[in-house]
Amino acid sequence: MTIRMNRQPLVLSDTGSFFVGGRMVETVGAPLEEHVLARNGVPVPINPNGTTVLGQMYVQYALPETASGPPLLFWHGGSLTGASWETTPDGREGWYTWFQRRGWPCFNVDAVERGRSGWAPRDPYFAAPALLRTLQDSFTQFRIGRAVQDGSVASLAAAAYPECRFPLDVFGTFMRQVVPRWSSTDELAVDAYCALLDRVGPAVIVAHSQGGAFAFRAAERRPEMVLGIVAVEPAQGGVTDGAALAGIPVLAIYGDHLDLDARWPTIRARTDKWFDGASRAGVPVEILDLPQRGIRGNSHMLMMERNNAEIAELIEEWLRRQSLEVSQPMTKDTVHA
Amino acid sequence: MTIRMNRQPLVLSDTGSFFVGGRMVETVGAPLEEHVLARNGVPVPINPNGTTVLGQMYVQYALPETASGPPLLFWHGGSLTGASWETTPDGREGWYTWFQRRGWPCFNVDAVERGRSGWAPRDPYFAAPALLRTLQDSFTQFRIGRAVQDGSVASLAAAAYPECRFPLDVFGTFMRQVVPRWSSTDELAVDAYCALLDRVGPAVIVAHSQGGAFAFRAAERRPEMVLGIVAVEPAQGGVTDGAALAGIPVLAIYGDHLDLDARWPTIRARTDKWFDGASRAGVPVEILDLPQRGIRGNSHMLMMERNNAEIAELIEEWLRRQSLEVSQPMTKDTVHA
Repeated sequence: MTIRMNRQPLVLSDTGSFFVGGRMVETVGAPLEEHVLARNGVPVPINPNGTTVLGQMYVQYALPETASGPPLLFWHGGSLTGASWETTPDGREGWYTWFQRRGWPCFNVDAVERGRSGWAPRDPYFAAPALLRTLQDSFTQFRIGRAVQDGSVASLAAAAYPECRFPLDVFGTFMRQVVPRWSSTDELAVDAYCALLDRVGPAVIVAHSQGGAFAFRAAERRPEMVLGIVAVEPAQGGVTDGAALAGIPVLAIYGDHLDLDARWPTIRARTDKWFDGASRAGVPVEILDLPQRGIRGNSHMLMMERNNAEIAELIEEWLRRQSLEVSQPMTKDTVHA
Repeated sequence: MTIRMNRQPLVLSDTGSFFVGGRMVETVGAPLEEHVLARNGVPVPINPNGTTVLGQMYVQYALPETASGPPLLFWHGGSLTGASWETTPDGREGWYTWFQRRGWPCFNVDAVERGRSGWAPRDPYFAAPALLRTLQDSFTQFRIGRAVQDGSVASLAAAAYPECRFPLDVFGTFMRQVVPRWSSTDELAVDAYCALLDRVGPAVIVAHSQGGAFAFRAAERRPEMVLGIVAVEPAQGGVTDGAALAGIPVLAIYGDHLDLDARWPTIRARTDKWFDGASRAGVPVEILDLPQRGIRGNSHMLMMERNNAEIAELIEEWLRRQSLEVSQPMTKDTVHA
């Protein structure tokens, strides 16, 4: 399927990027610095005092020439960036362009502090050390398999959970997209996500893991800007009873082998409980449990696994079943208004 | 011009991203950690011991359906990411898509340590504190105008150099794309740039500032993979006499008001001296001094200034005048081979 789609050209009315959110922060009274920024370079005086931006978010976008739906906003998970949704580590098409080819205007962010959004080394929000997941940690925490000692393909293959869908031969390639993260910036992230919704909403959010938690929190603050939420293994639900989301359809997707993991049974049970409450408050929640649909072996990183196009089709079927209202066609002018 | 081009759809045979370079690094003997990574989240055990990647580089790419030239590799400057080449801060088309629309296969990186390339908090390469430029520092160091106390549009307008081409009303928007940087990672960056050339070369490098310095160093190591270099205000020349670059055409572009800046007369004089030596060694160097061509008021950030399309046309004219050999058409298969 992916190969066939790739043979068709991708026709875009516009593509580019912009930034949303963030606020100006003033630094005063810090000592002057001087740095040589290139080998044998001319020393550059750096005055750390002055104005910097805190909490901004990078957004790339692509608008299909023939659009057939509202905007889809792709919100990646923890330790990751928008690269999650682009080409897969084994060179196949990711969901970002897959949905563009089907006519969806797509917006792919780097969350606050990640990727092109940047971060603020001197700000108290970033006072704690940044965390960078190891290969071994990622392999288990992303639920690809049991603990491994090393990253050789043989070791990974031996430890992988049954019917593993992750292309293990490029797990090292995947690790190149794992970036440092902090655990102190949720508030900044939700603020920036709300700024994005204000700019391009009403929209559908497609969110993964930590991004799923942000999606529910942002939707609680901007329900009028959210047409639907596709939560791919969300890290948690919202922080309210969900009443603000009444009428906003939610699709939650889970991969395989949660029972073999130390954390996921707890995460899933807690999120299911929040979904139960939200359902009672009028939120149409649908759970797409892939193993229950006969699709075995997917991990937490299912958007880049071998059957990612098959899962994308299930998502698109769900999207087409909702009554998603397109208030205005997305154009270059509406994006940059 | 930009507006007319934007009305035409952009037709791509493929677009996506990949990572190049980097090496696996092992951490041993560090104490175990436990972190709560979400509000009220389940504590996550983090073992810092294990394998991480150091020195990888993110590359986004877009292949026009009708390609008419070799690949262009966009290498951004210091404190910046590939966002430099995308949509301008005032919402106009950047060079990344401008050249795609003219048929050039385009590759836009985040240098090692920047943006989606990530960095390695525990690695000695990142032991020194990261630097984040202030608005005030950026305004002068990027040669937009004299020292300012605050970032109000009135202050910036009063301090701007004559005939300023930067859209000052969105200077705060531009500051959202300024990211932290280190001054200890040049070696990692050049290694990753060579890995990119090995993967998609022979290619033309379009490089800005620090990226220009990396371009000459990478070309010295991979001359057979470089068809030409467009150096936009390069921070410096190469580290050899340039003999390895014999026959590789170089276009160096400079904006206005170098004489009003504390550092740029030195940087320009030193780079010109390197160009003189390289010319004697057989490198065809052409200097495009914009003020000498009657184009006044451009700063160091000329790829996003009001006349960025006019400058792009001058670059394309120069490219079309070179005998750039296309060894093979770029397709999804060659990118992901």
